[in-house]
Amino acid sequence: MKTSIDCLPCFLKQTVIALRQLGGDEKTHEKVFRDVLAIMQDADMSKPPAYTTTFIHRTIRDGIDRDPFEKIKKEFNAIALSLYPSLRDRVKASPDPLWTASRLAIAGNIIDFGIFTSIDIEKSIAQSLRTEIAVDAFASFREDLMATEEVLYLLDNAGEIVFDRLLIEELKAAGKRVTAVVKGSAVLNDVTLEDAFQVGLSGICEVIDNGSDAIGTILPWTSPDFRERFEKAALIISKGQGNFETLSGTEKRTYFLFQSKCDVVSRELGLMPCSMLFRRS
Amino acid sequence: MKTSIDCLPCFLKQTVIALRQLGGDEKTHEKVFRDVLAIMQDADMSKPPAYTTTFIHRTIRDGIDRDPFEKIKKEFNAIALSLYPSLRDRVKASPDPLWTASRLAIAGNIIDFGIFTSIDIEKSIAQSLRTEIAVDAFASFREDLMATEEVLYLLDNAGEIVFDRLLIEELKAAGKRVTAVVKGSAVLNDVTLEDAFQVGLSGICEVIDNGSDAIGTILPWTSPDFRERFEKAALIISKGQGNFETLSGTEKRTYFLFQSKCDVVSRELGLMPCSMLFRRS
Repeated sequence: MKTSIDCLPCFLKQTVIALRQLGGDEKTHEKVFRDVLAIMQDADMSKPPAYTTTFIHRTIRDGIDRDPFEKIKKEFNAIALSLYPSLRDRVKASPDPLWTASRLAIAGNIIDFGIFTSIDIEKSIAQSLRTEIAVDAFASFREDLMATEEVLYLLDNAGEIVFDRLLIEELKAAGKRVTAVVKGSAVLNDVTLEDAFQVGLSGICEVIDNGSDAIGTILPWTSPDFRERFEKAALIISKGQGNFETLSGTEKRTYFLFQSKCDVVSRELGLMPCSMLFRRS
Repeated sequence: MKTSIDCLPCFLKQTVIALRQLGGDEKTHEKVFRDVLAIMQDADMSKPPAYTTTFIHRTIRDGIDRDPFEKIKKEFNAIALSLYPSLRDRVKASPDPLWTASRLAIAGNIIDFGIFTSIDIEKSIAQSLRTEIAVDAFASFREDLMATEEVLYLLDNAGEIVFDRLLIEELKAAGKRVTAVVKGSAVLNDVTLEDAFQVGLSGICEVIDNGSDAIGTILPWTSPDFRERFEKAALIISKGQGNFETLSGTEKRTYFLFQSKCDVVSRELGLMPCSMLFRRS
């Protein structure tokens, strides 16, 4: 997908949200903003928004010399972890645990403090679970899953990763070998190895990083090791809008589990904003 | 007031709204955006937001070689005019016509298609009339009015000007000489001489223009004629947030009638967003 002019106000809103995470002084914030505006002037609008936001978030981290989301990521992981036992019980008690865990993984994508300024996880998840899946390729997913031994699982946000753990545990219970993929280093509220460790995912499946600090998965910017794994993967689960933006043209058999959080992506998909998707490539 | 970093996403949102008024081609829009981003990079954050948005809206008009709001201004004037007879009856039938007309003039400030993407005038006005005035200096205004012969009335938006006409008619009925002030040329959805003519204000009081295309009233950028009138004015009614931003430090006895439409101004005032104000300088 291309970048729309409607994305541009949102880029700056994301910048405000990132800068406001840490307080900090106005002079530094203004300096960061001028650098972000310079990046936006050179934005390649023919590329997905994730390209420009990757540069923007690098600039923010460089400008304040920290990862603005470090603390809140830990907090949201902890909140989500506190919900984990009851969510696991819910999955296990359901007539179709794989379906319930998939649905929870999509619901968990509502946790995105890089876009939303405040979020009540429990309430948001409950609401997401009441919402119908707008695009639902679950039946096809189950079939594809039966034909494969391995799943490459591209993770998205902190907090959300606990919901992914539920789905990964179901995939493991079905005898699949799962490799979960985190970002190479800090970017926005995306998970890194540290988050996988915090929520106990490292003990459940192999976790690798993609060697990149890009929003979504911009393949040319990932490590050769990751690219090899990606190329060899028979079945990919891709979480989040950033991964959808950057991988929607892939020829790999990929299932995109996410919520369309912005007007631009929703319009492109012909859906209402905040639609829940289980979409096949 | 100063410009906050929170204003910056809003500047771009205003740019999208302006560009979307006319359709037009993507290439031109992108070019305009890059020019707007360049302006924002040089923004003087120590000045009110109206300074930067003045430059931005000039750039938009230059970039598309038209006034994007020309058509919608006429439409909103016409819609508001269709409500005029019933609003006038409401004023005349009320126990305190001056108060009712003042309140309607503040309610009319909700009409701002430069900020809101869609608006149902009748519904918005009805809602505004149900809302309590958060800062109410009407009693003081009535006293000041009794002590003066003349009022300088700084107008704001198209559509809203019909509500101003109601208040101006009450001021005239009270024997005051009113001079209504429009912008020198097109800017955003602000009124010019053409709008005053369209809604019949020209036949009711003297209408002058301020010689400027600035958002609000940036005195150094107005004409010498207007500045003289401003300096001599004993009592000023100032409509809208733009005029408040740019004139709130004035030593002139001024009553600011407006709604605080954004988070930044509302925060500065210590009020909830969308508060209605009848505020004394």
